[in-house]
Amino acid sequence: MTAPNQTGWLAIAGLGPGDDRMVTPEVTQALAQATDVVGYIPYVARVAPRPGLTLHPSDNRVELDRARAALDMAASGKRVVVVSSGDPGVFAMASAVFEALEGRPDWQALDIRVLPGITAMLAAAAAAGAPLGHDFACINLSDNLKPWPLIETRLRAAARADFALAFYNPRSASRPEGFAKALQTLREECGADRLITFARAVSTPDQRITTVTLGDATPEMADMRTVVIVGNSATRRVGPWVYSPRSAG
Amino acid sequence: MTAPNQTGWLAIAGLGPGDDRMVTPEVTQALAQATDVVGYIPYVARVAPRPGLTLHPSDNRVELDRARAALDMAASGKRVVVVSSGDPGVFAMASAVFEALEGRPDWQALDIRVLPGITAMLAAAAAAGAPLGHDFACINLSDNLKPWPLIETRLRAAARADFALAFYNPRSASRPEGFAKALQTLREECGADRLITFARAVSTPDQRITTVTLGDATPEMADMRTVVIVGNSATRRVGPWVYSPRSAG
Repeated sequence: MTAPNQTGWLAIAGLGPGDDRMVTPEVTQALAQATDVVGYIPYVARVAPRPGLTLHPSDNRVELDRARAALDMAASGKRVVVVSSGDPGVFAMASAVFEALEGRPDWQALDIRVLPGITAMLAAAAAAGAPLGHDFACINLSDNLKPWPLIETRLRAAARADFALAFYNPRSASRPEGFAKALQTLREECGADRLITFARAVSTPDQRITTVTLGDATPEMADMRTVVIVGNSATRRVGPWVYSPRSAG
Repeated sequence: MTAPNQTGWLAIAGLGPGDDRMVTPEVTQALAQATDVVGYIPYVARVAPRPGLTLHPSDNRVELDRARAALDMAASGKRVVVVSSGDPGVFAMASAVFEALEGRPDWQALDIRVLPGITAMLAAAAAAGAPLGHDFACINLSDNLKPWPLIETRLRAAARADFALAFYNPRSASRPEGFAKALQTLREECGADRLITFARAVSTPDQRITTVTLGDATPEMADMRTVVIVGNSATRRVGPWVYSPRSAG
């Protein structure tokens, strides 16, 4: 084991959904002090190159390897920022870094900080109005890391308890059928009139916000750049907006 | 009805949990352009006074009145920022503003934007590690605006579906018994070994993060400045941290 070098540190930072005006000063400051930035290719591409900063873009399917590489650099005295889009604690790199600490007391003694960011569902909710203004549940619809029956169980439980719902990773080319099943489950539990918002590429020039009823929703309305929000039974439109009232029951 | 004045606008902005380094540049910019800032007294106190800016601090129990006053000012040509702590769309002012738009087509035509902020549960999760790194549900434990049986139903449904849980407003002096009931319900559903994190005054000099088991948790560990996070069945400690692994099932 390498003894931790006290000058090194690791920050796991959220870059927000895309607009630079949603990057917190805390994250900007960490990036300004970093010697190394580690992350998935499109997120590292959002960090401006400068002398003294090494960028380490990597593929998406190697989260644990990426976390270990970052920890190893911090242990050797580097100032390392692991970047995620949105918030690093919501379906992003923070859990991978803590998983990588298992069995490594040397790494556990490092100076590690998680720097929160604006997560996609809250930027999407803000762009649509306030559909998450009451109790809500947040579900990753990707079945890469959990079995579909568990997703189905959570969907039904949350819908029956009248939570609003936010979905990350609703649909990819490699598993287009999952989101179609989810929509069918939601129609069964919530009825055809429930409002659903598709928020694509939130806060970027490509942003597109579409609110329809579950009866009119089709799987093709979502892709991997889309966050999906389903209202609760009280969620309603007002003018161009959609919102969940503060009161329930 | 007053015709909307196109030079006026309303921004509903999140100031984050307390640390100024977690205020987004988008929110800072809106405050710099504002003529009027409206909000609950301690949040307005976070905005620096300057010539040309009128501060309108108000009590906590008048959300709808405050929203209407802000909309009325925007309609008269003012540049108004309604401030919330955290994110305005999570148990904060955004829903109140959209409720105030009901029946007022003149106000619905105003330039209204919701500017997201770092919400308390995600700042708390970051300070503790990554306990919300897997599917989670977010519940306001205040029964001011919904009946306790609905809170109980949502608690049990989310716990049985093995969501991690985040609680806002867990406990106040006026209703200390609710959180004790919630802890009892959680012990029944999740067992005594489940991890629970109390995050008080996150990101401020008073920050205190405490993680215990449900068996050791007491109601007095929470107050109105505390966000509470309960892990899912896989949530675990590593070094000084607590996190939920990316995989489940």
